[in-house]
Amino acid sequence: ICLVAAEVNACQHRLSLSLSLRQEIMKWNGWGYSDSRFLFNKKGQAEFTGKRYRLSGLILPSLKDWFEGTFGANLQHKSPATPTVNLSAVAPPDLNEPFVEDLKAAGVAMSHDPEDRVFRAHGHCLHEIFALREGRIGRVPDMVVWPSCHKDVEKIVELACKHNVCLIPYGGGTSVSSALECPREETRSIVSLDTSQMNRILWIDEKNLTAHVEAGIIGQDLERQLNERGYCTGHEPDSMEFSSLGGWVATRASGMKKNIYGNIEELVVHIKMVTPRGVIEKSCLGPRMSTGPDIHHFILGSEGTLGVVTEVTLKIRPIPEYQKYGSVVFPNFQQGVACLREVARQRCAPASIRLMDNEQFQFGHALKPQVSSIFTSFLDGLKKFYITKFKGFDPHHLCVATLLFEGDRGKVLQHEKQVYDIAAKFGIHYKKHLCVCVQDLGMDYYVIGESFETSVPWDRVLDLCRNVKERIVRECKERGVQFPPLSTCRVTQTYDAGACVYFYFAFNYRGLSDPVHVYEQVEHAAREEILANGGSLSHHHGVGKLRKEWMKESVSGVGLGMLKSVKEYVDPQNVFGNRNLL
Amino acid sequence: ICLVAAEVNACQHRLSLSLSLRQEIMKWNGWGYSDSRFLFNKKGQAEFTGKRYRLSGLILPSLKDWFEGTFGANLQHKSPATPTVNLSAVAPPDLNEPFVEDLKAAGVAMSHDPEDRVFRAHGHCLHEIFALREGRIGRVPDMVVWPSCHKDVEKIVELACKHNVCLIPYGGGTSVSSALECPREETRSIVSLDTSQMNRILWIDEKNLTAHVEAGIIGQDLERQLNERGYCTGHEPDSMEFSSLGGWVATRASGMKKNIYGNIEELVVHIKMVTPRGVIEKSCLGPRMSTGPDIHHFILGSEGTLGVVTEVTLKIRPIPEYQKYGSVVFPNFQQGVACLREVARQRCAPASIRLMDNEQFQFGHALKPQVSSIFTSFLDGLKKFYITKFKGFDPHHLCVATLLFEGDRGKVLQHEKQVYDIAAKFGIHYKKHLCVCVQDLGMDYYVIGESFETSVPWDRVLDLCRNVKERIVRECKERGVQFPPLSTCRVTQTYDAGACVYFYFAFNYRGLSDPVHVYEQVEHAAREEILANGGSLSHHHGVGKLRKEWMKESVSGVGLGMLKSVKEYVDPQNVFGNRNLL
Repeated sequence: ICLVAAEVNACQHRLSLSLSLRQEIMKWNGWGYSDSRFLFNKKGQAEFTGKRYRLSGLILPSLKDWFEGTFGANLQHKSPATPTVNLSAVAPPDLNEPFVEDLKAAGVAMSHDPEDRVFRAHGHCLHEIFALREGRIGRVPDMVVWPSCHKDVEKIVELACKHNVCLIPYGGGTSVSSALECPREETRSIVSLDTSQMNRILWIDEKNLTAHVEAGIIGQDLERQLNERGYCTGHEPDSMEFSSLGGWVATRASGMKKNIYGNIEELVVHIKMVTPRGVIEKSCLGPRMSTGPDIHHFILGSEGTLGVVTEVTLKIRPIPEYQKYGSVVFPNFQQGVACLREVARQRCAPASIRLMDNEQFQFGHALKPQVSSIFTSFLDGLKKFYITKFKGFDPHHLCVATLLFEGDRGKVLQHEKQVYDIAAKFGIHYKKHLCVCVQDLGMDYYVIGESFETSVPWDRVLDLCRNVKERIVRECKERGVQFPPLSTCRVTQTYDAGACVYFYFAFNYRGLSDPVHVYEQVEHAAREEILANGGSLSHHHGVGKLRKEWMKESVSGVGLGMLKSVKEYVDPQNVFGNRNLL
Repeated sequence: ICLVAAEVNACQHRLSLSLSLRQEIMKWNGWGYSDSRFLFNKKGQAEFTGKRYRLSGLILPSLKDWFEGTFGANLQHKSPATPTVNLSAVAPPDLNEPFVEDLKAAGVAMSHDPEDRVFRAHGHCLHEIFALREGRIGRVPDMVVWPSCHKDVEKIVELACKHNVCLIPYGGGTSVSSALECPREETRSIVSLDTSQMNRILWIDEKNLTAHVEAGIIGQDLERQLNERGYCTGHEPDSMEFSSLGGWVATRASGMKKNIYGNIEELVVHIKMVTPRGVIEKSCLGPRMSTGPDIHHFILGSEGTLGVVTEVTLKIRPIPEYQKYGSVVFPNFQQGVACLREVARQRCAPASIRLMDNEQFQFGHALKPQVSSIFTSFLDGLKKFYITKFKGFDPHHLCVATLLFEGDRGKVLQHEKQVYDIAAKFGIHYKKHLCVCVQDLGMDYYVIGESFETSVPWDRVLDLCRNVKERIVRECKERGVQFPPLSTCRVTQTYDAGACVYFYFAFNYRGLSDPVHVYEQVEHAAREEILANGGSLSHHHGVGKLRKEWMKESVSGVGLGMLKSVKEYVDPQNVFGNRNLL
């Protein structure tokens, strides 16, 4: 179940990651670090390996039963992945020799090693990971280039135009929209432009509270380096261990703590982008302008189709003095949504507030590690008693919101009181933080799944959640899935006028001849259901190639035409030919 | 001195304004209502006429001395305006007869009455008002059309394309960027599309806290009608008595209380716009999306060059329970800026916080009305004593911040304490609200002036303010202005990374052969000084035709090219031919 690394961030001990090692320590065919994964040991107990996360090295005694019960899976029936990347399936590179020669002369680092190319040929869509695990390799970039600064990018783009090669910018590789897939119909040499070496903080301006940063920097590195100086951006997308600043800009990323720090469009003070037509930038760092349409918004969400974001000026904040987690348990999802809506109405949302449905709550329980302390387990028991008996909450309906408060200690405590006073009308405050962190699990046992998201007005949230979850169950059944799927959702962000909802679904695919195709058909139907229920095409994942078919419907024909006209002006040769979005 | 209606809003008793009467009760050659103006009576005392504002009907005993002293003006030397619009100077309309016939058939209201046309031929730039006062009329629209709904606009735009006429959308007419000026080089018939009849609130959604409103509605009408239902948008640009929702969107307007309610781009949930290429709209009202570049930002700031904004979905909020004004007096401008910066750093800015420099503080004193209450005047005396003697604040350096808190009573009081605790490090809290409301004054006595604004990073605020104010004084002198000008500024908005600064300057133009040209040269130099000091081309006034020459510098050649490519796609015939921006 590549459910997603949701809220891993909140729990993890963040480690420095030398970028040159990135490729070596990360999974080549799944999410995250090679050393951090779920497995079932010889006793049939689930473990989470490695040392990086709170769960790392722990036995999870309940997971097996949950897994078998939920998916009808059998640990005896394994579907193991190809152990290493299937290099024999990688086509030889189609190099544009004059381009390569000019690049060499310009001193830009490059490679056409097959592993380098495969690593940058995909994001983390189910079908991409599934193919890798099966040893199937599609079209991959013909070479990789590593610019080390803005000037290098200018040179590369100039040469790409001159020699007509196709450039695909590559940041953290965490796309879940097929955005990194090489178009099969592309006849030119495809060059992956890896921004990972453009990873410096160029300056920090303590007077204006801004930092000027190269766009290839990875989220955790940016945050760690700013932390060392006493600052943070506060931008924490679930992918922040691996995703890049440039990627955030290109996809309009959203951070878990947006209620304090804002989403990427609110964090950005200035963007510099290299395009075939030249460099896009503004002449000043004024905090807000009325100088025609805001050209930053031509770049934000452009998904690599216009050029390469090279440098970004971001807002920074002093590291908050105090952080506090908490939870609220509700008798049902409806009460949970009503509580989040009221918190949003009163505009007192904490840094983060997320509501899990009952299925995720149960999964959270299944992830409980073995406990050595009698005291903890006693408390757990007490709480369970409280929930299931005393208040009469039905364990098959209750759901949980997780909260994170951040700021000055005094204000956090005051803020907490305000929120829990509201929450008391809908559920019960729990002092413990119930977090759910899920990564690749299940693919080894014929279980596949993935997540997708939307934004939706408040009054449509409940219907949309119910209808989409039911649609998934129905579609799976109709398409021959033998066992009812896991179909679950959470509300991950609140806004004045609506919310972001994340859906996850996974199922046991034994007996299906083309499980990925079934998965995609079900997800497609779920998306249609989302749109029919007033949801948007995406809240923060972007469009990529996966959701292109709905773009016209989403922004009207004229809207799409405007986007195309910008593309045609900026990149008439389609050098940035990843074919996302339009 | 058309200094601007700054903070009039805060003081005024808002009156309903029947839109059909608008033209009759507003000045045809100046800002605001005909019945509300400054004049010097037979005793030489200043009065503010009418009944609409706090100052209305009051004698302002200090204003004469201030006026004569500041400008070296002499009330004996008058430069009165032409009493009525000079209709003989209005060229006969160049009507596109087939267009007119088709419009008639479609039942759209229209006029080619010269007064109607002149009224919509200008905004409120100094040169526009000055010309009207002198009876000079330039190119005016050939006719006016009044669509009554979105469908009417679709029809008008369709017919304009068919018959190749030039459309200029007209909302509230409050532009200060020459945006409404008819291009002299335009050879087609020019049609002013007046949105004033599209002024209905179409629905209010209390669950999502949104309202769907026709874009021609005027700010005060929108707010009044929402207030009747218990809601507000909280959007209060200084022009809100006269400016329209569509105009706010088209120029990227900023509201006084943006710290609570947001600027227009944050208030908007959905925009519908009619263009020659068709209707631009999104398919859903999700609160935040990642579906490519945000097409709302192609419309926000487009200044009438792409089409007509017809309907907007806006966020609304319950009317706040409590409002409280206050002031802080600082020994000098530097301390005032330091205080605002600290308030912004701690992110506790009240709904509005504005810092006036010493010149504006003195002007504020000059506006004090005659007082009948001994008690009030005693307190005033005490305060003056306190400022000038006790604390040793120099009356020629001190400056004042005005603050507005809004919300639940308890929270307002708490918030106030937080802000005044910060302010105590820089100045002295004053419980009274010191507001400055200034309108057309002085033009009758050879004094002209105007305002312009910018946004700028915090660390540049002081230098920019000083340099621009000095530059204005220097330029006036070099250009033969006899008496030192009034050159003053205020910080009107605070942001995380910078502030908005408003400049005002005015001077006695006696002895100058072309005073408006001198004014424009000085403003031009001031703008160059702003840009050289890290300021933006505009914070919320927009570009219009007045600031076009700096657009390329502001957004880079590629940025400008992108804007042009959108224009060419959306409106290849240049039907929306006001020639703003690009």
